[in-house]
Amino acid sequence: MKKTIGDFLLDRLSQIGIHKIFGVPGDYNLQFLMQAEKRKDIEFVGNRNELNAAYTADGYARIKGISAILTTYGVGDLSALNGVAGAYAESVPMVCLSGVPPLYSIKQRAFLHHTTAEGNYEDIMNCYQPFTVAQVRITPQNAIEEIDRVLQVCIREMRPVYIQIPSDITFFEIEVPDNKMISWIQKSDPLQLSELLHVLKNRLQRAKSPVMLLGNAIDRFGLKEITQNLLEKLNIPFATQSAAQAVLDQGLPQWIGEYNGGASLDSVKKLVEHSDCLFGINVKFTDSNSGYFTQNIPENMIDILPFRTTIGRQVFEDVNAADILNALVKNDLPKNTTIYASSNKFNSQTRWVAEHGKGLTLDRFWLKMNHFIQANDVLVTDAGTSMRGVRSLSLPSDIMIINQPLWLSIGYSLPALFGSLMAESERRHVLFIGDGSFQLTAQEASAFFTHDLNPIIFLVNNKGYTIERSIMGLYSAFNDIPEWNYQKLFDAFSNNKPYSYYQITTEDELEVKLQELEANPHKLRVVEIMIDAFDIPKKVQDSADRIAFFNYGERGLKELNRKI
Amino acid sequence: MKKTIGDFLLDRLSQIGIHKIFGVPGDYNLQFLMQAEKRKDIEFVGNRNELNAAYTADGYARIKGISAILTTYGVGDLSALNGVAGAYAESVPMVCLSGVPPLYSIKQRAFLHHTTAEGNYEDIMNCYQPFTVAQVRITPQNAIEEIDRVLQVCIREMRPVYIQIPSDITFFEIEVPDNKMISWIQKSDPLQLSELLHVLKNRLQRAKSPVMLLGNAIDRFGLKEITQNLLEKLNIPFATQSAAQAVLDQGLPQWIGEYNGGASLDSVKKLVEHSDCLFGINVKFTDSNSGYFTQNIPENMIDILPFRTTIGRQVFEDVNAADILNALVKNDLPKNTTIYASSNKFNSQTRWVAEHGKGLTLDRFWLKMNHFIQANDVLVTDAGTSMRGVRSLSLPSDIMIINQPLWLSIGYSLPALFGSLMAESERRHVLFIGDGSFQLTAQEASAFFTHDLNPIIFLVNNKGYTIERSIMGLYSAFNDIPEWNYQKLFDAFSNNKPYSYYQITTEDELEVKLQELEANPHKLRVVEIMIDAFDIPKKVQDSADRIAFFNYGERGLKELNRKI
Repeated sequence: MKKTIGDFLLDRLSQIGIHKIFGVPGDYNLQFLMQAEKRKDIEFVGNRNELNAAYTADGYARIKGISAILTTYGVGDLSALNGVAGAYAESVPMVCLSGVPPLYSIKQRAFLHHTTAEGNYEDIMNCYQPFTVAQVRITPQNAIEEIDRVLQVCIREMRPVYIQIPSDITFFEIEVPDNKMISWIQKSDPLQLSELLHVLKNRLQRAKSPVMLLGNAIDRFGLKEITQNLLEKLNIPFATQSAAQAVLDQGLPQWIGEYNGGASLDSVKKLVEHSDCLFGINVKFTDSNSGYFTQNIPENMIDILPFRTTIGRQVFEDVNAADILNALVKNDLPKNTTIYASSNKFNSQTRWVAEHGKGLTLDRFWLKMNHFIQANDVLVTDAGTSMRGVRSLSLPSDIMIINQPLWLSIGYSLPALFGSLMAESERRHVLFIGDGSFQLTAQEASAFFTHDLNPIIFLVNNKGYTIERSIMGLYSAFNDIPEWNYQKLFDAFSNNKPYSYYQITTEDELEVKLQELEANPHKLRVVEIMIDAFDIPKKVQDSADRIAFFNYGERGLKELNRKI
Repeated sequence: MKKTIGDFLLDRLSQIGIHKIFGVPGDYNLQFLMQAEKRKDIEFVGNRNELNAAYTADGYARIKGISAILTTYGVGDLSALNGVAGAYAESVPMVCLSGVPPLYSIKQRAFLHHTTAEGNYEDIMNCYQPFTVAQVRITPQNAIEEIDRVLQVCIREMRPVYIQIPSDITFFEIEVPDNKMISWIQKSDPLQLSELLHVLKNRLQRAKSPVMLLGNAIDRFGLKEITQNLLEKLNIPFATQSAAQAVLDQGLPQWIGEYNGGASLDSVKKLVEHSDCLFGINVKFTDSNSGYFTQNIPENMIDILPFRTTIGRQVFEDVNAADILNALVKNDLPKNTTIYASSNKFNSQTRWVAEHGKGLTLDRFWLKMNHFIQANDVLVTDAGTSMRGVRSLSLPSDIMIINQPLWLSIGYSLPALFGSLMAESERRHVLFIGDGSFQLTAQEASAFFTHDLNPIIFLVNNKGYTIERSIMGLYSAFNDIPEWNYQKLFDAFSNNKPYSYYQITTEDELEVKLQELEANPHKLRVVEIMIDAFDIPKKVQDSADRIAFFNYGERGLKELNRKI
């Protein structure tokens, strides 16, 4: 079958579930955009800038499983890079398409705009290399095998890939295969798998205190349902790392809470650290999910990664997490007979009564949110106190949390919200973002009006980078930000479309306005929460103390007069 | 002398003329910010995001000769990268400081936030490598020699450098030299220089039609005054590449106009291309300054670069442009006896009379600007029609133009304006920016209010990326942008500080409002120019046709129904 290169690429994107491409037009990608414009199965959605586009695509991929951005060479690629690196860090698959100069001009090393005019056409590719799992510059000769290869790696590794599309070739016709894109994962080596299963069954049969620990990107690797099935079959307790907070329902009685190293609740620490059969699924310990490396994990933890399992020094290569979990569910395994009390891991079930006229604090706001969040909500949260707040919530069922627990790039959440809404606009979305983070990517808020999206945005106005204040420079001017009139900002973006804006200073206002807001689901609703700049919840301060100690050491804290 | 590493670095920055550091705080740089906060000679100026910080520093360096940004590891570094690459492309020296994790944690390859948690601590450095001329990760052991080395390279090469500052070492005391930072440039090899001078004198003495051609960054390389002296001494005609538009006064009768390959005026083409002694100073031909490589330059052009001169196949290594020009000025050389008519290279001197009620067009707007621009103005211009417009102006004396003629990253100019104003706030600054570009970095406009800066901002509201429309997709939705209420946006940022806002649709309004605006110099003044989305001046369309032909080729234009 004959097709243009552009249409072949668009076919493949469509076949793997990409129906929106986010990005910014530029002269090297316009011809590809002209080709995309003619299609019904795929739509280009313009962003306000390329970093925002990458964040948006990240949010879209959290719901749809994969996403794409389109940038223009050099300027656009580099602007998007931080968002791409974030997707890499958090295991989010994203196809990064870049419109690049004509193929012959690259070969001639022409001195073109959007380059450094030194004839170096490897520099941008090199910048993408550490943050993508496959890269290619398409030619008419390699298009067939390379496009499929790169997309295949994206889907398998659950991380970004980078495709350079020369501006002068996408309308050329090539012979393409008739079949649709087949994405496949190698099955486990049968002997390896059966040997591992033998070990696992033995461990589980002998286990007196088995515990499961859930790690990163379990949903994106397609392991959510099977993990839940296995948990039900075994009826064993499970803990979560921060990235897995809501991957399974917190209401499950087997859930014991978040494991965060030395910063965990004692009850969680005890069960996880003393388990004689700790069963980890895509677990990774980083500073921010281990109480700064104070985890204390049994050496013989079963460490199941997507394509490899290790148990102490035993390594099982070429076994897939999905195959292992599926096999275990089908096997005859001892069912734990414990009946779990539906314990309260939070102080959240208590009624929240507004204290008349009392100024709102973060602690009280987050307690209230326990009652506000509904089953099936998508919660998008920025770094800082917002992410900490959401980590403290007792969540109802079927919650999706969108954040960057590892990469922690401030400003991520607002465009990510745009992306997840473009993937599932009918679902209720709630964003939690501080003013410090909001200002970085604020212009993307105009997208909610352009596309008639109706999220609830909690904008915490606490006059600066409170998370930084808690780490160092509590009163320092460098942690201040300019005071904006956020309502006027949304007015500027609204183009006279109706939306609701609430500014809340007291507890009663919060109570009243939340009711008002819930009665008004078909509008964008912005809730500006006025919080004192120095209102730092204890959990935030505890974590900040650990960060400060790690970053600056005892000597640093002393020299800089920072008390812990 | 004993000093902390942080103070030694700050001393050095201050000694080379950096008195503001732009950037965004983050946990890995807070301790360095605490050290900077105590100083009187250096001030941290917060930006709304890191890309904006890099653009701001670029603008600051255009006036002050050098600048600095401070980011936090990973997230901040990658966000800033496009701005740093732009500074590299345009030869703007910028010290990029990054607060990075503690030294020991890097050695241990710790899995930290703001990293991909794979223990790779070379990835960010590798991304900076193609766009900086020196890089270092400071340790207490290497701080003395490395800081001086890297800053020295920055000053010599006039391009960015990258310094990683581990968060746990800047407060340690080290033994530092008593002397101030000495920045020096190797003098030319005397024999090489005298041999070259001999050749040049011969050429100039025999020359019948000598012409000088001025290229990039002549002011930043310190060659402006000496070039002017030499021109006066020789009394020969000179042409400029786009990057040198205003480096010497356009009022000099020897100026013949812009040389832009086949897109030049015939009079310029003739003189430059038929010169028997074409004398280039830091000339480089790129697509956008050569009418897409239609330059036709005599093979024996004297091509003087900062540290090398070539004449045809003759190469003179180790000769500095400054030494050559200085020596020539002191030499006995033939003075051209031509008396130049003060010719009008533009249609600008004609009176501009508003046609009553007539809607404003870009052509008419730019003609009017010939009368509006004043001597000593700083003109900051974004890519697109704004840059084209400024290139068409007949400028008075002592104009500084700040733009990116090569890198052409849209959104650059607004933060760059902030930076140049922070360097010279009393000078009149005029920004020309289209709405498409404005939206990318809009949040930085709040800085004008924070710092009480009073530029004149011409915001061209033509509902999209007109420059892209002119290249491809004239009516395509991908070239549209959301309609914002820009006045409300400035209101949101203003925090109730007074400023003036003018929205202009007709020629009379332009005339009246410009007078009003000029009577009001001590305020920020925003002039929103309402222009039809499809108003594409002929020069813009001509250039777009060349771009389209180069990017997509004849076949592409045909397939995509794009007429030229």
